[in-house]
Amino acid sequence: MPEGQPLSIPDDGLTTKQRRNRPLVMVHTGDGKGKSTAAFGLALRGWNQGWNIGVFQFVKSAKWKIGEESVFKRLDELHTETGEGGPVEWHKMGSGWSWSRKGGSEEDHAADAREGWLEIKRRINAEEHDLYLLDEFTYPINWGWIDIDDVVDTFANRPGQQHIIATGRRADPKLMEVADLVTEMAKIKHPMDAGQKGQRGIEW
Amino acid sequence: MPEGQPLSIPDDGLTTKQRRNRPLVMVHTGDGKGKSTAAFGLALRGWNQGWNIGVFQFVKSAKWKIGEESVFKRLDELHTETGEGGPVEWHKMGSGWSWSRKGGSEEDHAADAREGWLEIKRRINAEEHDLYLLDEFTYPINWGWIDIDDVVDTFANRPGQQHIIATGRRADPKLMEVADLVTEMAKIKHPMDAGQKGQRGIEW
Repeated sequence: MPEGQPLSIPDDGLTTKQRRNRPLVMVHTGDGKGKSTAAFGLALRGWNQGWNIGVFQFVKSAKWKIGEESVFKRLDELHTETGEGGPVEWHKMGSGWSWSRKGGSEEDHAADAREGWLEIKRRINAEEHDLYLLDEFTYPINWGWIDIDDVVDTFANRPGQQHIIATGRRADPKLMEVADLVTEMAKIKHPMDAGQKGQRGIEW
Repeated sequence: MPEGQPLSIPDDGLTTKQRRNRPLVMVHTGDGKGKSTAAFGLALRGWNQGWNIGVFQFVKSAKWKIGEESVFKRLDELHTETGEGGPVEWHKMGSGWSWSRKGGSEEDHAADAREGWLEIKRRINAEEHDLYLLDEFTYPINWGWIDIDDVVDTFANRPGQQHIIATGRRADPKLMEVADLVTEMAKIKHPMDAGQKGQRGIEW
């Protein structure tokens, strides 16, 4: 929520309205909880504005059935049935991307991650979504599977009004540099520290 | 998401299952974005599990039309129509709490905040919801409108399986002490620093 006025007005030749509606690159990083959860919360706002949303889940999340996926699939159906909100596409890397014909190449996560990134890049260049939610995207970058310079170049030069939000620990400095908004979720206290495991509804 | 195993197994006489399902008090604090957004994302997970959700918005948010409110009202209707998910009640302080018969007492925010807290306390003691989302709850506490000791006592001694999540900057140390999970959302970079104002879909 807007919590104040801008600290300074830049000399960028844009009107306030143009600047306000400038599409954003957002990063949620840090060791604490809430990185993905806040990203999905943002997608919920976008859905309500009628945005076309593309969710791309990298790495482990892909294998898990998470609550958000059920709800967003339901919201996508609602959009189709009644015109409320916007369309939502949900893709995950776990057992092969849904647009791909190659079944799950469980052995080659790096190739899967790269294939996912190439499809996202293609969509960004074709202006297919209003919001791209790249969940756990920092990991394949940090493992060297996806080229950070290609990511930065694609984000920085994307056409039109496309927002991007990427989540994951230890975001690459170049990713934070290209981002307009970076939030670090820091763990102050977590029930696992007191011997409690994750539970339904809270963790997934 | 579960990102590891507990660091230690406590000697509390509980089984792993009992400990896993222990209801949580969660706090999202810090100066960064994502505190409320992550809380609403969590409520989305809870809805998907069929939880009965009560949202209570304190302070300024109450006057704003936020995207989450529209979506959760729609999800509540879906629950009523089809039995999917759980019921959602949404209350905000802005122009008088919805359960209250006194119209908006715009002049006395402190009394409004206290009235809100007393109703929440009543509901907690009566076990009315599975998840209480207390948005911007730290402010009325910090301004001395709501007694932190009463809050801590109510949270610590609540009956049954009730989860609570509170958001807002500068959480009182006693609130963090009673919480099981505390995440600090720290601002690393924000577009307002570059002269950009909030925009539809991102900030509300």
